Amino acid sequence: MADLEAFFNPRSICIIGASRHKGKIGNSVLRNIINAGFHGDIYPINPKSREIAGKKCYPSVLDVNRPIDLAVITVPAETVIEVAGECGRAGVKFLIVITAGFKEIGPEGLEREKKLKKLCRKYSMRLLGPNCVGFIDMHRSLNATFSAVTPLKGNIVFISQSGAMLVSILDWSKSLGLGFSHFISLGNKADLDEADFIEQVAEDPHTKAILCYLEDVAEGRRFLEVSSKASLKKPVVIFKSGISQAGAKAASSHTGALAGSDRAYDAAFKQCGVIRVETMSELFDLAIAFSGKTLTQGRGVAIITNSGGPGIVAADCVEAKGLKMVRFSKKTISKLRTNLPAEASLYNPVDVLGDARKDRFEFSLRTILADESVNNVLVLITPLDVTEPVETAKAIVNIANDSSKPVFVCFLGGEQVKEGARILTRNSIPCYSFPEPAVNAILKVAAYTELRNKIDRKQVIKSFKVDAKTVKAVFFDAVREHRLTLLGNEAAAVAEAYGIPVAPVELARTAREAEQISSRLGFPVVLKVSSPKIIHKSDIHGVRLNLKSAEEVRKAFRDILDSAGYYLPEAPIYGVEVQPMVPEGTELIIGMNRDVQFGPLLAFGLGGIYVNLLKDVSFRLAEKLDEEEIRDMIKETRAYSLLRGYRGEKPRDMDKIIKIIARFAKLANDFPEILDMEINPLIAYEKGAAALDIKMNISELCKGGV
Amino acid sequence: MADLEAFFNPRSICIIGASRHKGKIGNSVLRNIINAGFHGDIYPINPKSREIAGKKCYPSVLDVNRPIDLAVITVPAETVIEVAGECGRAGVKFLIVITAGFKEIGPEGLEREKKLKKLCRKYSMRLLGPNCVGFIDMHRSLNATFSAVTPLKGNIVFISQSGAMLVSILDWSKSLGLGFSHFISLGNKADLDEADFIEQVAEDPHTKAILCYLEDVAEGRRFLEVSSKASLKKPVVIFKSGISQAGAKAASSHTGALAGSDRAYDAAFKQCGVIRVETMSELFDLAIAFSGKTLTQGRGVAIITNSGGPGIVAADCVEAKGLKMVRFSKKTISKLRTNLPAEASLYNPVDVLGDARKDRFEFSLRTILADESVNNVLVLITPLDVTEPVETAKAIVNIANDSSKPVFVCFLGGEQVKEGARILTRNSIPCYSFPEPAVNAILKVAAYTELRNKIDRKQVIKSFKVDAKTVKAVFFDAVREHRLTLLGNEAAAVAEAYGIPVAPVELARTAREAEQISSRLGFPVVLKVSSPKIIHKSDIHGVRLNLKSAEEVRKAFRDILDSAGYYLPEAPIYGVEVQPMVPEGTELIIGMNRDVQFGPLLAFGLGGIYVNLLKDVSFRLAEKLDEEEIRDMIKETRAYSLLRGYRGEKPRDMDKIIKIIARFAKLANDFPEILDMEINPLIAYEKGAAALDIKMNISELCKGGV
Repeated sequence: MADLEAFFNPRSICIIGASRHKGKIGNSVLRNIINAGFHGDIYPINPKSREIAGKKCYPSVLDVNRPIDLAVITVPAETVIEVAGECGRAGVKFLIVITAGFKEIGPEGLEREKKLKKLCRKYSMRLLGPNCVGFIDMHRSLNATFSAVTPLKGNIVFISQSGAMLVSILDWSKSLGLGFSHFISLGNKADLDEADFIEQVAEDPHTKAILCYLEDVAEGRRFLEVSSKASLKKPVVIFKSGISQAGAKAASSHTGALAGSDRAYDAAFKQCGVIRVETMSELFDLAIAFSGKTLTQGRGVAIITNSGGPGIVAADCVEAKGLKMVRFSKKTISKLRTNLPAEASLYNPVDVLGDARKDRFEFSLRTILADESVNNVLVLITPLDVTEPVETAKAIVNIANDSSKPVFVCFLGGEQVKEGARILTRNSIPCYSFPEPAVNAILKVAAYTELRNKIDRKQVIKSFKVDAKTVKAVFFDAVREHRLTLLGNEAAAVAEAYGIPVAPVELARTAREAEQISSRLGFPVVLKVSSPKIIHKSDIHGVRLNLKSAEEVRKAFRDILDSAGYYLPEAPIYGVEVQPMVPEGTELIIGMNRDVQFGPLLAFGLGGIYVNLLKDVSFRLAEKLDEEEIRDMIKETRAYSLLRGYRGEKPRDMDKIIKIIARFAKLANDFPEILDMEINPLIAYEKGAAALDIKMNISELCKGGV
Repeated sequence: MADLEAFFNPRSICIIGASRHKGKIGNSVLRNIINAGFHGDIYPINPKSREIAGKKCYPSVLDVNRPIDLAVITVPAETVIEVAGECGRAGVKFLIVITAGFKEIGPEGLEREKKLKKLCRKYSMRLLGPNCVGFIDMHRSLNATFSAVTPLKGNIVFISQSGAMLVSILDWSKSLGLGFSHFISLGNKADLDEADFIEQVAEDPHTKAILCYLEDVAEGRRFLEVSSKASLKKPVVIFKSGISQAGAKAASSHTGALAGSDRAYDAAFKQCGVIRVETMSELFDLAIAFSGKTLTQGRGVAIITNSGGPGIVAADCVEAKGLKMVRFSKKTISKLRTNLPAEASLYNPVDVLGDARKDRFEFSLRTILADESVNNVLVLITPLDVTEPVETAKAIVNIANDSSKPVFVCFLGGEQVKEGARILTRNSIPCYSFPEPAVNAILKVAAYTELRNKIDRKQVIKSFKVDAKTVKAVFFDAVREHRLTLLGNEAAAVAEAYGIPVAPVELARTAREAEQISSRLGFPVVLKVSSPKIIHKSDIHGVRLNLKSAEEVRKAFRDILDSAGYYLPEAPIYGVEVQPMVPEGTELIIGMNRDVQFGPLLAFGLGGIYVNLLKDVSFRLAEKLDEEEIRDMIKETRAYSLLRGYRGEKPRDMDKIIKIIARFAKLANDFPEILDMEINPLIAYEKGAAALDIKMNISELCKGGV
């Protein structure tokens, strides 16, 4: 872990570009640092002033002549390099460059950013930014930003690649009464990035949850490493944007982020226990949820409401989200009956009726929390005639404080419930305006504890013997022939070398050879055209099935060559692949593409010719894959229902399929020169499985490699 | 249409149970009526008072001796019947029964409700409620509710089956500055229901949009009728709850609603132009959207933002929702360049940069609205240092007022943007806190205009000749034999009578007959066991394919009978169905179930044995179906890609499939005695299609009918 102690806990700060003029960023930063109550030394730097805000001002950082841990740079872009150089010479340890005008504005800015990075490396300075809002640590009274709003103290970190998103969440959170431990604005991430901070705050005792807004991650592998460790310690919630073409375009004109494949991000987040949110409001909702005192340990939900409609809406949502409306014990129901009116509903959702004051909520909440099957309670309060929002909120705070189970509240209304809602939020009771986000919050908190347990159990896949030599030899041969697309029999040899069961396939260059191979493999056989240029063999009539005699093979060989010559006269034909007919089974697909950020991305799903139509495919990174994760990957698809035995069919050999995916993943991990590969179909049987058709493309890389 | 004139515009109102005690409902209602400024006569009724709130009080409605249009009843449940009877005798035209304690509390209440209904019928009184909050008409200054909050005047109707939902939206809308034309609390819907009010307010000049919260609809057919007409005039947005088991259970303990099949509701809403929302917050979001001055006429969106991150998030969302990020014309871009800083992004999303004041937003908005390709503008405002939320909001109001294109705004923040947001909402500019709901609002408004155009074009399906006599004869025969499940050949005869092409199928009772039929139909043939008790014929080996000779047919006949006898010795066997083998094609399914509320519900999708696995099925009501709707139904499925010609295959005969679905629908509409039916598979070819296997169940109904 990087040593960021002097960044999080500097003894001295200088503000380069400090200004006495309100509205200037250099003024806002200086004032924020002073007003937040920073305990160390503060040195405003500005050649035109002798004193600002009661602090002695220096013409240059070089004039301070005392050790400086942190320098905040707010001068115009053109002079950043100069003052950063001075910082280096003055022995400054950390820079925060707030100034914009770097890679986000194009080539000129990119050049400037490169210079800045080089300079930082030269002087071993670490850098936050450029083009950022700065940094706030509420528990160390440090506010090195130009934000006009000061947040409340709390236990959530917000790390944001967008400064505006940070300012907006800050303003919003304050109006709700939600507190934060840190705000970190990443800007262009020229040096310090999300991984550095996630790693750091995962250890921070004041921080309960880590929330991020990201447009990309700086380094895929390191992100995986850091966030899988962090998510074991506390929830890591990420809102990742830039997933659409339009969004990615906007992102790259923004902080110059190169949006990776969204599927790879999705798999990465899943595999390292990160909770991904889909909207900005969900990010905010989860900030509230994870600020809660207690994390839930289960999916059972009980609802208390003073009105029918919202109770129905919440119950609908609980079921739709895969949570569970619990059934109360007889004891709970008898207890509820003692103190609630006769018309009240004692079953889940408990309806305490429209004329409920604080006491009915109080009584029901205590009673229900005592029920063993209840993991979470959601209290819905509509401001009716005699409702007591403030008193009820206070009662809930007291009860929830004594409970080991989380209580979520939904106050349905506007002005009439505002104060009650604020009381709850200030006291770390997650409170929402609508039932659906409240239920979603319960789900995501439950999902986090499940995810954490899974990551905790994660094991390295048992290593197994492979024959890497054969793989290298096949690549060598192909490259020597200037081919980067392997022939079918070559791809099969590679897969076989990694222990993947393949249907035997041999290349016949003449009709005679085809006959001989067929006799050896046994009739009936299949013939397929072999050419690095022909990918969809059926489309050009390049496949003949169920050939039962030497004569049929001979004829099929000629027909295939004729067809190929007719449809694709330019394609080089290597001959015809001969394969024995295999019995029918469940057709699956296993594929791999190499992602720029996260390495090999695996796909699994229903195979055959309708792959693209059905889109029944799940994704995982080959990195960080264990057997349980592979099982989850399979479960996400409809293929899973087929494999378990659909409509009376016998179940397929699940263990074998898992092993094949593991070996496929290892092959992808071991050979970076494999650009992409695909088994389609892999035929799964009651016992065993066989790869029938394998495609593989290798990169120029292996020219040097072999 | 019911004559509700005296309800919406009463000349006189009496409040039965009026009270001088604050906190009593009878007090709140009276005060609300007076304070809202009702122009007609007001008669408090209470035997214990002589005067309340400056109005003369009468012991009974019978003592008033002047014509009374509307009576609001707030007395305890036990005395409701009595006072309602008095109202009848006094010639009251409309009752609003606010009192609870009717069918929602069980058998006793149900009995009371029945009495109330009977009484109303006797005296020709119309009734709102019981168990409701009442009714508000902002434009006629009538507030006959006990709500503590008075709404703002505006142009949205909210009709709610839940009183709490109504109170909550009222409080919420007031805090945002959103106005309403009517609030109507339906309660138990003993008489007047959603259809009555939708019909009425569709004609109201003060109402721009109709929003509803429903737990069920009272009468399916009438709802379809009314809401298809209403949605042609103005948007009808419905939030329907009670879709889950838990929700439905809560709903029936609430206002005793019987939740119909959610799929039927979905189809019903779709087919009559209703916009269905999925969450309570979406309902609120669309209230804001449809209060807007202008409805959009297209899916092209332009975004203006003062910060990158939110711009990316919004652009992502525009693409994900199926809207379109427009490309500006050269003219627009040149114009933008003249007045925006060099670092600003001039392309969509337009980034006016963090230091933008009101003027840059103003200039960009005007410029972009003038671009022809732009249908909607979304302005994103993050409260940064120099941002001017209030001034910018005012500028946007002015510009949007002059424009024929809708402008949506998203103010990202809390306290700092509150005032600006309120200004926008008060001036009917839809304003949101997050980008995603703003984009969703744009989508739903665009979708409404598209839906309206579609409904407008809706045509009755051309009538076609059918042979109803044959259908009746088949039913007659089956019922006479005490069978409600038709045999395969019977179902085929029914389908054929309605012009659905079926693969010929005949019943053979002996092996000899099977041979003869096979010869007549032509080899190869298929044999299937025929028994009303055997539904999944393959599962008991009751199907033999590709029989090529009389000998094979003979053997297959025996084998099938043996299998059936072995697996299901109890099942009555009628013989074996003989069908010629038909060529392969695309396998489809068409099904029908009869919904309690909406009648026959059709299903269409990919057929074959994987129907349940792939769940590639879309639904429509047979009622209100035209060819365009059938085409849309097909387009919603993946089967559509197959039918258009997937991976080089020839396209299938789409017109024929549409005609078959239309005939299938007519059959379902014409014969209420058909409980359910299914063609699976329907084989679609390049030219034509054939129903291969048809199942049909009829009801006891037709015993009397034939």
